[in-house]
Amino acid sequence: MRRAAIEHNRYVIRLGQELGSQAITIWLADGTSYPGQGSFRGQFERVLDGLREIYRAMPEDWRLYTEHKPYEPAFYSTVNADWGSSLLLAQGVGERALCLVDLGHHLPNANVEQVVSRLAMAGKLGGFHFNDSKYGDDDLTAGSIKPYQLFLIFLELLDAGGGELPQLAYMLDQSHNLKDPIEDLIQATDALMIALAQALCVNRAGLREAQQENDPVLAEELLHRAFRSDVRPLVAEARLRNGAAIDPVATYRAVGYREEKIAERGESTVATGL
Amino acid sequence: MRRAAIEHNRYVIRLGQELGSQAITIWLADGTSYPGQGSFRGQFERVLDGLREIYRAMPEDWRLYTEHKPYEPAFYSTVNADWGSSLLLAQGVGERALCLVDLGHHLPNANVEQVVSRLAMAGKLGGFHFNDSKYGDDDLTAGSIKPYQLFLIFLELLDAGGGELPQLAYMLDQSHNLKDPIEDLIQATDALMIALAQALCVNRAGLREAQQENDPVLAEELLHRAFRSDVRPLVAEARLRNGAAIDPVATYRAVGYREEKIAERGESTVATGL
Amino acid sequence: MRRAAIEHNRYVIRLGQELGSQAITIWLADGTSYPGQGSFRGQFERVLDGLREIYRAMPEDWRLYTEHKPYEPAFYSTVNADWGSSLLLAQGVGERALCLVDLGHHLPNANVEQVVSRLAMAGKLGGFHFNDSKYGDDDLTAGSIKPYQLFLIFLELLDAGGGELPQLAYMLDQSHNLKDPIEDLIQATDALMIALAQALCVNRAGLREAQQENDPVLAEELLHRAFRSDVRPLVAEARLRNGAAIDPVATYRAVGYREEKIAERGESTVATGL
Amino acid sequence: MRRAAIEHNRYVIRLGQELGSQAITIWLADGTSYPGQGSFRGQFERVLDGLREIYRAMPEDWRLYTEHKPYEPAFYSTVNADWGSSLLLAQGVGERALCLVDLGHHLPNANVEQVVSRLAMAGKLGGFHFNDSKYGDDDLTAGSIKPYQLFLIFLELLDAGGGELPQLAYMLDQSHNLKDPIEDLIQATDALMIALAQALCVNRAGLREAQQENDPVLAEELLHRAFRSDVRPLVAEARLRNGAAIDPVATYRAVGYREEKIAERGESTVATGL
Repeated sequence: MRRAAIEHNRYVIRLGQELGSQAITIWLADGTSYPGQGSFRGQFERVLDGLREIYRAMPEDWRLYTEHKPYEPAFYSTVNADWGSSLLLAQGVGERALCLVDLGHHLPNANVEQVVSRLAMAGKLGGFHFNDSKYGDDDLTAGSIKPYQLFLIFLELLDAGGGELPQLAYMLDQSHNLKDPIEDLIQATDALMIALAQALCVNRAGLREAQQENDPVLAEELLHRAFRSDVRPLVAEARLRNGAAIDPVATYRAVGYREEKIAERGESTVATGL
Repeated sequence: MRRAAIEHNRYVIRLGQELGSQAITIWLADGTSYPGQGSFRGQFERVLDGLREIYRAMPEDWRLYTEHKPYEPAFYSTVNADWGSSLLLAQGVGERALCLVDLGHHLPNANVEQVVSRLAMAGKLGGFHFNDSKYGDDDLTAGSIKPYQLFLIFLELLDAGGGELPQLAYMLDQSHNLKDPIEDLIQATDALMIALAQALCVNRAGLREAQQENDPVLAEELLHRAFRSDVRPLVAEARLRNGAAIDPVATYRAVGYREEKIAERGESTVATGL
Repeated sequence: MRRAAIEHNRYVIRLGQELGSQAITIWLADGTSYPGQGSFRGQFERVLDGLREIYRAMPEDWRLYTEHKPYEPAFYSTVNADWGSSLLLAQGVGERALCLVDLGHHLPNANVEQVVSRLAMAGKLGGFHFNDSKYGDDDLTAGSIKPYQLFLIFLELLDAGGGELPQLAYMLDQSHNLKDPIEDLIQATDALMIALAQALCVNRAGLREAQQENDPVLAEELLHRAFRSDVRPLVAEARLRNGAAIDPVATYRAVGYREEKIAERGESTVATGL
Repeated sequence: MRRAAIEHNRYVIRLGQELGSQAITIWLADGTSYPGQGSFRGQFERVLDGLREIYRAMPEDWRLYTEHKPYEPAFYSTVNADWGSSLLLAQGVGERALCLVDLGHHLPNANVEQVVSRLAMAGKLGGFHFNDSKYGDDDLTAGSIKPYQLFLIFLELLDAGGGELPQLAYMLDQSHNLKDPIEDLIQATDALMIALAQALCVNRAGLREAQQENDPVLAEELLHRAFRSDVRPLVAEARLRNGAAIDPVATYRAVGYREEKIAERGESTVATGL
């Protein structure tokens, strides 16, 4: 079974080369659902061996991302359950192995922005699966539940990038069983641009000074000043200059793309993915 | 012990009468820290009996608020642990017994705005202890961690009040060991006014229509439209018309109140409270 | 859609009558995945109306069970999210509407045995879906993760039944994608019998006295004395007297039932259920 | 302030030398209670620097233990918040810096036994603060809430020690505001001895075979066979052979130690500690 999984990954790498990809993300369901079912250490070491083999099969300009998740589908233990395990795996695999953070893959109450900072500090932050959640791996639209957390994550990214967004693999990983998938992507993209614009509005020199002066009230005022700013006109102008719509949801609805496609494909066609 | 507790509450009511109060909030530490230590049902019934006695001792224009909290200081079970228990207590005590919601007194991931809606629906929503938290009963400044949740709670309040804020007991319950307590209150008041202003900006007729049309994308757009608006000028103007400062933290710092009081009272004076 | 759902339930009741059932359990996915998508109160009232209609369609000797669950498939709010909502629904529907407790349908850290006590106290405890879980609605084998909690739940049941197990609807609700489903049922049944036997071993008069004397150490000793007892010989003897196997997993494996059925049905046959 | 903290630790080391200690455990409250209050990375690097300085001040046969905790007293972020941070600190400090696991210092639903396995695999498992908890850092008696988890932790320890308990720093860290502190220690010691005895009863060769054969049912049976065994006679006999009491709580009560000490010291004397 391990052999088949590794072969599948080698096959995926070959497909990716044809498509012009330069990275592979490995999220693994490996784990156990009952105490005693497996050896924590044995499973970890086997996964590490497998990842090393996949890593060796990658072209030299590719990156391998390890993605952690605490549970589901395994319900008692997961091999790559937390950022600590993900870091040990990425460190054990090689230089071009980095950690990928999915915003919904954390235990209740986790401080995700601190996890981002830790991985960046360890030189192993590779990328993101953006989405939002209230309970677990809910895969809701980015920014729909905790917009302030999203803003704080972008603030950490700017910190890691010296004031600019670092070159990482930024991906959306959302599930669209209620919304039109394109509208879901539009809303998420908008939320990410807004969070980034707000983070860019933070007076970072002033923030460092407030931190230095041990003035949490002023530090918070500086964050609120940016987060409470209405950056939508700025984001809309940026979109316009990139040749895109000022109001993307309204535009998407006005052009009738969905109706057209339904007329073309029929009501029963379903777009699926992992 | 129960007798002493009831007598203490009667004494507090008499003090409150002298002070012109019209309500008493009863948060109870009653519970157990070890399985077997007490009878869930026996404890509940004794608490209910005690609350009834306190209720009978209240003047007729007073209200009694039951405040729930899942744990701390009791670490295995708490008599008034959740809104369901709080509702059973308030219903069992009498018409002027209502439930009080402290934003930090919920299990991880609880949907607090839905709890607010449920209690309002049952006719038993009495008031709030506003604060914010990431982990438990952290008593942080209102709006400092989850400002979007605060906005959603105000939206429920407007819903319960038919578009206006209902007449409830609105209180701040924060702990100030890092911030100047007055600055903490200023930031919290600002956060509450901003959340209310944002909630008032929601197109509620449009929202109902989007709900009716099963259009979660549009419903979300309407919420975001309000939440992403910069209501700070509006809130500042309202403050100005009430004779208060436009920028309260800066003003408070500029007038040197804190330095003056320290000069007066000395560095070692500490203001405490429950 | 609501009409179709109600009709479906009426159809299910008719099927149940043919099968000799006397109860219907209603777990509802109703809820929302995004803030603003629906009205908490509107949804609750529509669900209550629907349940009343289904209740009226039930034969007079039937019971209706409302089953709560905090999330999944709805990821922001669920109509019947907690025991408080379930109680309001059962109270609103009628005398033969009762609450059903699924052990995995609670927020993190919830005290499930206290929920059982509350519903019993309110006269609305109807039954159980037994299983176990570490993270959410994991549907693992009863007793596989938190056997002490299972023991404490049985202790509450004995309390509610005056020392005997009350006549409720006791069901297993487990998912078997790793284990042979029959072996899973065997292990769960064994775990339930063991937990019940341990709970029956508790010196309940002594426990009440320790509680009365405010002696948590002794109370805990009494619980541990029962829980640490090896009741397996007792349970095996009870099984033997009921004409069943002393060691059911070993017996099941020894008789070769699984191999026989696979030979009969082929490897690819899959037994499914909800 | 940092200088004072480091000096305090050097002073503690000198005291420890006089007392014959050979280790120092450093649990740090360092963190923030509000977003923006501090830099995640800056704080981490300052703590690491401080620990290195303390490490250099230690005698060569001493060990330094880093103890993580997700929150409290810091309520937004904590420098040493999780095992990943603790590992980075211990790795950054030196060979004789190891990680200490307090059973109550984990986010909700964390798999603590897997954390133990991870740290052992990384060669950095240093010791334990044993206690139990339902909600957070509750510091309840070891084994009082989740005895099966305690058993699973000992199973990991035996795994790490090749079938024997490895030489680590095993400590109790409990808070005794309800129980007589000595009775609390007695109950905890008993619970630990029972969990260890049960873990020693596991057929570990059979378990490895069941894991190898992908037989989670049998693996679970093997764990249950050990956990459901009544090891109390064994543990009592071991106690007897060590010159201790067969039934320690009853013996402690019978000898009247508490009454004697109260007569000696008076009712108002309170024993306190950190």
